[in-house]
Amino acid sequence: MDGDQNTGGFRGYRDTAQVDMPMAPPVHGRASGGRPGADPVPAPRTVLDPSPAPQDHRTTPDQPRTVERHLDEILAAMPEPEPIELAVLDAQGLLCAEEVVSQRALPAFDQAALDGYAARYDDVAAATVEAPVQLGVVGESVAGATSPSSIGPGLALKVAAGAMMPAGADVVVPAVWTDQGPVRVAVQAAPPAGSYLRRTGDDVAPGDPAVGVGTPIGPAQISLLAAVGRERVLVRPRPRIAVLCAGGELVDVGTVPAPGQIVDVNSYALAAAARDAGAEAYRSGILPADKRRLTEVLESQLLRSDLVLIAGTFASGGSDMVTDALAELGQMRFRQVTMHPGPVQGFGRLGRDQIPVICVPGEPVAALVSFEVFVRPAIRLMLGKRQLFRRTVQAIAGQQLESPLGYRQYLHGTVMRHPDGGYVVEPVGDGTDAQLARMARANCLIVIDEDVTEVAAGGLVTVMPLLLGG
Amino acid sequence: MDGDQNTGGFRGYRDTAQVDMPMAPPVHGRASGGRPGADPVPAPRTVLDPSPAPQDHRTTPDQPRTVERHLDEILAAMPEPEPIELAVLDAQGLLCAEEVVSQRALPAFDQAALDGYAARYDDVAAATVEAPVQLGVVGESVAGATSPSSIGPGLALKVAAGAMMPAGADVVVPAVWTDQGPVRVAVQAAPPAGSYLRRTGDDVAPGDPAVGVGTPIGPAQISLLAAVGRERVLVRPRPRIAVLCAGGELVDVGTVPAPGQIVDVNSYALAAAARDAGAEAYRSGILPADKRRLTEVLESQLLRSDLVLIAGTFASGGSDMVTDALAELGQMRFRQVTMHPGPVQGFGRLGRDQIPVICVPGEPVAALVSFEVFVRPAIRLMLGKRQLFRRTVQAIAGQQLESPLGYRQYLHGTVMRHPDGGYVVEPVGDGTDAQLARMARANCLIVIDEDVTEVAAGGLVTVMPLLLGG
Repeated sequence: MDGDQNTGGFRGYRDTAQVDMPMAPPVHGRASGGRPGADPVPAPRTVLDPSPAPQDHRTTPDQPRTVERHLDEILAAMPEPEPIELAVLDAQGLLCAEEVVSQRALPAFDQAALDGYAARYDDVAAATVEAPVQLGVVGESVAGATSPSSIGPGLALKVAAGAMMPAGADVVVPAVWTDQGPVRVAVQAAPPAGSYLRRTGDDVAPGDPAVGVGTPIGPAQISLLAAVGRERVLVRPRPRIAVLCAGGELVDVGTVPAPGQIVDVNSYALAAAARDAGAEAYRSGILPADKRRLTEVLESQLLRSDLVLIAGTFASGGSDMVTDALAELGQMRFRQVTMHPGPVQGFGRLGRDQIPVICVPGEPVAALVSFEVFVRPAIRLMLGKRQLFRRTVQAIAGQQLESPLGYRQYLHGTVMRHPDGGYVVEPVGDGTDAQLARMARANCLIVIDEDVTEVAAGGLVTVMPLLLGG
Repeated sequence: MDGDQNTGGFRGYRDTAQVDMPMAPPVHGRASGGRPGADPVPAPRTVLDPSPAPQDHRTTPDQPRTVERHLDEILAAMPEPEPIELAVLDAQGLLCAEEVVSQRALPAFDQAALDGYAARYDDVAAATVEAPVQLGVVGESVAGATSPSSIGPGLALKVAAGAMMPAGADVVVPAVWTDQGPVRVAVQAAPPAGSYLRRTGDDVAPGDPAVGVGTPIGPAQISLLAAVGRERVLVRPRPRIAVLCAGGELVDVGTVPAPGQIVDVNSYALAAAARDAGAEAYRSGILPADKRRLTEVLESQLLRSDLVLIAGTFASGGSDMVTDALAELGQMRFRQVTMHPGPVQGFGRLGRDQIPVICVPGEPVAALVSFEVFVRPAIRLMLGKRQLFRRTVQAIAGQQLESPLGYRQYLHGTVMRHPDGGYVVEPVGDGTDAQLARMARANCLIVIDEDVTEVAAGGLVTVMPLLLGG
């Protein structure tokens, strides 16, 4: 149920933020959880709501922008990778990028559709169980036999499914409607003339289109491509995505972190998410701390990628070695985006080829939420998919949900079918639970719109199921 | 929304055949389409209904069995492949086969959850915009700094998100709630004690379970596995499936077929379908015509596979070189199954290791339908998936549908959302259309139960959307 690319069709994502907003008294609670590299702006959902209070005395380089605005900029900048030719089996799941026209007729010859007797309809039309028609059997034709034969009046040829029809025959009498005699056969019923045989080109005639531009290639299309003789096919390729992470506190997963250090989890998690979304993901790991080597790594990834994805702790308007190195390669902007988690998001087009670079927060939960919101749709756009966004459902909130005013909130949750129909969703954990373990128990994101601060228990909320491979 | 294995849970597939059956006058029509190797029993849905008439005079070796009965036999015989250890990125989409227990605390040290000032709550509790509290800034701590510090009364440490908390501090004041002074800082509001910091082990304590047996591994689980230091993880492997096809009429896709010959499309289409279902599929292609080599190929595939899948024209109770070769390797039974297309289905456990072998019809449409019905659930069972079967929906039939009495009919169709909610389904083609091209335009199977011969236009019918990678 996926189709060809629909440029501009990505505006439908605004549907994902519909929220029913019943009113209920506020519940005060917990402080914000999170992990290293998190939100430079607090989520003001604790007892204190600082938003009208001493909010941001600094001069920020950019005003906060909405999720839609940031996403629009990213999607508009995505390249369309050049089509490539792949072996049909490797084309599975990709979109066809050529009009495949059959040079052949399918079937290539008139053939029996099932096991039985090829006969002349006029001979057998009157056959009944009480008064069978007797025919002489001139021989037998099996699938793969290459010499055409013929039958005259009063005669039949025993045929297997797929066997070439003899000249003169215009019907196949199913074997089970006869006495299956080998020399003479008693026909006890006749199908209509033309039954149970397939004429040359009935399926596909030479010059017929077989698989068109934009068709998703699955087993059925592979079947048809093979049938028309295609071993290879031109497709929209999987975009090549380099996944990097930035941060002086990071060590590779094989290293036991010293005090103050953090294991790099984002290059693994984001590479997995990118593969799941359909990309060819290359995990490049932690960016070097040496400035010259850092720039070399960035430049080489820009040369070999359709998109570069970097997770790290980037301050909106701030400066560090990585942001400085990125700035030398082109215009890279870090901005406040009115979402939680993950309010600082970066995007730019860098290097000679103006390759898109997306920077997401280093905090692992914010990194994966940002991936869902910005990177997955970008990958699907490059793949040519018509559906850029995950389907959302409306679910009944099993408990009250709070959200910071002015921020679109993404909460991990578990969504279940309700016995009475519809869905029920609960946020994962009780709020004292910390985040990575909690996220690993979720099967959805709960999306709470910017202008909603509370959803009452029993209210409807938008839920985005996080199915794998979807 | 996928979970651990639920043995015996596969009986739920019976839900897929619910059909609403409004009555309507019969419409007479077209003869059965199809392609080589098709149905040895005609689908009696033409003007003639032969089922009470001269049906099968032979002594069949086995009585026809239902789809459920055949599927039960297959599922009950599926092996559970031994768990294997994979790099975490390669584990994506598979089920965890071990209880991963964290040896570490996450976070590994008390740390700031956001950029701000680590302080003593008692010092800042009374702060307001009108009466800010002044603190002395003793220094700055960034993420990755490894030397713990401490603060006394009246002092603060500037901290970045992820930075280690100084001893003595019990709150982080967000930077935006201060004047962000570098030497002295004016705090204009205070969060509750304990806010915006993360305590050692809040997320995961040493000895805590991280990812359990049967958990599907996606980006979030990979994130957690990396965080607890796992580079590799034990998983339920992808079952190895050899895909073969049998038939003297077959030539490889690279060959232009001579008259009477057919291109092997099934080894491509079934390998693609097996990969899409989650298997590691090996396309072995056309079985050799030489008896000794044929047996060698079968034996070697049995040695390296968890399941062998063969497409070919097999007669129920019949005999040819392939069925004879299979019979020499164990008990292989070919049976009439009351489904259309694809009424002859084979199953056996062959070779020293009693490897399951599934034989499906050689006609390409029947082969893919049989795959959906029997092979895909078997692959998902071996993967340990809880949901063996595709979800089905009830859809409004856009036109009248006919089905042979006593057979479960699977028709390819296109299903669409209805503007008023729900789904509408149309069979593909107009019935004169031939099959491979038609199948390639479908996005679902329409399932019509054995006891239903007609579904009126506007009636409800069961539909199985054929989503890729689902």
